[in-house]
Amino acid sequence: MAKKKIISESSNPKKNKKDISVGVVGSGSFATAIVKMLVENCKVVHWCVRNEFVKGAIELRGHNPTYLTAAHFNLKSLKLTTDINDLVAACDVIVLATPSIYLSDTLDKMTCDYSDKIFISAIKGIIPKVNDVVAHYLRDEFKIGFRNQAVIAGPCHAEEVAMERLSYLTIATVEDETAEKLEGIFSSDFIKVHTSKDILGNEYSAILKNIFAIGAGIASGLGYGDNFTAVFVSNAIREMETFLEAIYEAPRDVNESAYLGDLLVTAYSLFSRNRNLGNLIGKGYTVKSAIQSMNMVAEGYYAADSIYKTAKQKNLKLPIIDTVYAILYEGKNAEKQFKKLTAKLN
Amino acid sequence: MAKKKIISESSNPKKNKKDISVGVVGSGSFATAIVKMLVENCKVVHWCVRNEFVKGAIELRGHNPTYLTAAHFNLKSLKLTTDINDLVAACDVIVLATPSIYLSDTLDKMTCDYSDKIFISAIKGIIPKVNDVVAHYLRDEFKIGFRNQAVIAGPCHAEEVAMERLSYLTIATVEDETAEKLEGIFSSDFIKVHTSKDILGNEYSAILKNIFAIGAGIASGLGYGDNFTAVFVSNAIREMETFLEAIYEAPRDVNESAYLGDLLVTAYSLFSRNRNLGNLIGKGYTVKSAIQSMNMVAEGYYAADSIYKTAKQKNLKLPIIDTVYAILYEGKNAEKQFKKLTAKLN
Repeated sequence: MAKKKIISESSNPKKNKKDISVGVVGSGSFATAIVKMLVENCKVVHWCVRNEFVKGAIELRGHNPTYLTAAHFNLKSLKLTTDINDLVAACDVIVLATPSIYLSDTLDKMTCDYSDKIFISAIKGIIPKVNDVVAHYLRDEFKIGFRNQAVIAGPCHAEEVAMERLSYLTIATVEDETAEKLEGIFSSDFIKVHTSKDILGNEYSAILKNIFAIGAGIASGLGYGDNFTAVFVSNAIREMETFLEAIYEAPRDVNESAYLGDLLVTAYSLFSRNRNLGNLIGKGYTVKSAIQSMNMVAEGYYAADSIYKTAKQKNLKLPIIDTVYAILYEGKNAEKQFKKLTAKLN
Repeated sequence: MAKKKIISESSNPKKNKKDISVGVVGSGSFATAIVKMLVENCKVVHWCVRNEFVKGAIELRGHNPTYLTAAHFNLKSLKLTTDINDLVAACDVIVLATPSIYLSDTLDKMTCDYSDKIFISAIKGIIPKVNDVVAHYLRDEFKIGFRNQAVIAGPCHAEEVAMERLSYLTIATVEDETAEKLEGIFSSDFIKVHTSKDILGNEYSAILKNIFAIGAGIASGLGYGDNFTAVFVSNAIREMETFLEAIYEAPRDVNESAYLGDLLVTAYSLFSRNRNLGNLIGKGYTVKSAIQSMNMVAEGYYAADSIYKTAKQKNLKLPIIDTVYAILYEGKNAEKQFKKLTAKLN
């Protein structure tokens, strides 16, 4: 693969850029990666960042000051704001890419009319306020129906997007027309897009994989090796299948990239913050100190609580989820819990 | 996980070791790892090595002179020979663990009665002489029926066995009694055994995963990243499922450790010789020079030829297998072939 320069001005003059009004909400790594994907195709990308400091820093330097600093932007392609209403009013398509714990703070400020907008969730976590996934939260709290929603899934570390390394996204949405439109604005030389209708399956799988990645990290921290990790991950994908079937039955193959691929990239990659959180715990850090030592949110921590409880309600047998929950929330000893887990895997 | 000392004397006095007469044929890494597993449970393990030099070196040093040198043995537990007939005559259970290209040379010397013996294949490759898998080769050339056969599968790098890191084996055999017996002689503190009846499925999957690992290595050598590898592997497991269903339909879940787990450990691990072969080719080595630069046999090279032809006969659509074959056997350019492949993955 021909390697491009990491700094992309996103202004290929040969390209006929699209006039679609699209915006991104959030200023973390993945939000920044999504902005980078969109400026490949769109004349202007609206970007609602966390505060004036971040906005000013991007305007000054042409890159996010804190996350994914390697992704450089041509400022002419960006329309920065810190006001969610500015962004929503200006855009037909809005990508939500904040950490899950901050989404409600952001959306609660939304007072403009958003009834005909498309909201895409790139959030891979549970909304703590309602203890539910984004798709349900948008539907129940904001009356945004599934027809106006989409989910971005697939194995896609932001760091590799910044380097323009080929990545595959899955965009899940029920409307064919929306699918086609979104495929057009995300596809580029380094992003291939596939579409799916499995909104909830894609959202839950993206959440589950973070919990499994914490588990893979704990195993690594405890000294388990590659042979064990392979067994662990092949059990994890079967637990994912069990959970998804119980939550939302649909024709799906969990070995597609959006499910298995995303699990793999998260469980195996050293870029993964969830895996790193687990690794610290496996090495002997307390859960609290491991969380404090990271400067990014590990979504799997919050997800483990919610998913564990849902699984219990549905009487599902998910030994990996149970083990990670016991370590994170019941103060159980990681070494002993994993020793017990090894007898349940196959 | 409590780490044990790497040097194992395999002579736990508390353990009631078994009086089963078991032997291992082969003196590479995996053969040595299997001997290490067996001395945990058996009073004596018969071991047929390649030549007098290897035999003498093990007798002198207590470890294989060339491969898996970290696995140390108590010589009282070993009965070394270089004569296959000595070993077969003395054993009820014989583990075949040579590289696939050397198996026929070894077994052609077998003149003793072996009609009631159990032969376990730990070989993960095609027998070039007959262009077929070991199970068929033993059945057709030696009249060893499937009832007298077993296959060892599962994610199990020899290097980690030497370190006594927890690993899971799958032993496939049709007879319940044989399964129970073999489970008993392989299980230990660091080896967990599961059984299966899918002899051919386990054997083919172990072969296929080597081809996919060459592909993963080529991708890495070409500069593709973690995001792409995750997509590649999630396509590979689906190709494996397609192939296995076409070859031998059976109730199986390809996400079990013997199938997906073995693929993961091979495609992701830097220990994998098949992945390393691919990586060299991706970096620009010719196929010939890449093979010559390695001092171990990469089974996937031979397998790619055979599996590709079988897939063509059965009209299977396996883009990764086709791509690896084109690069290895048709002199096609790796970069161009992978560029084409990226459009076929999802």
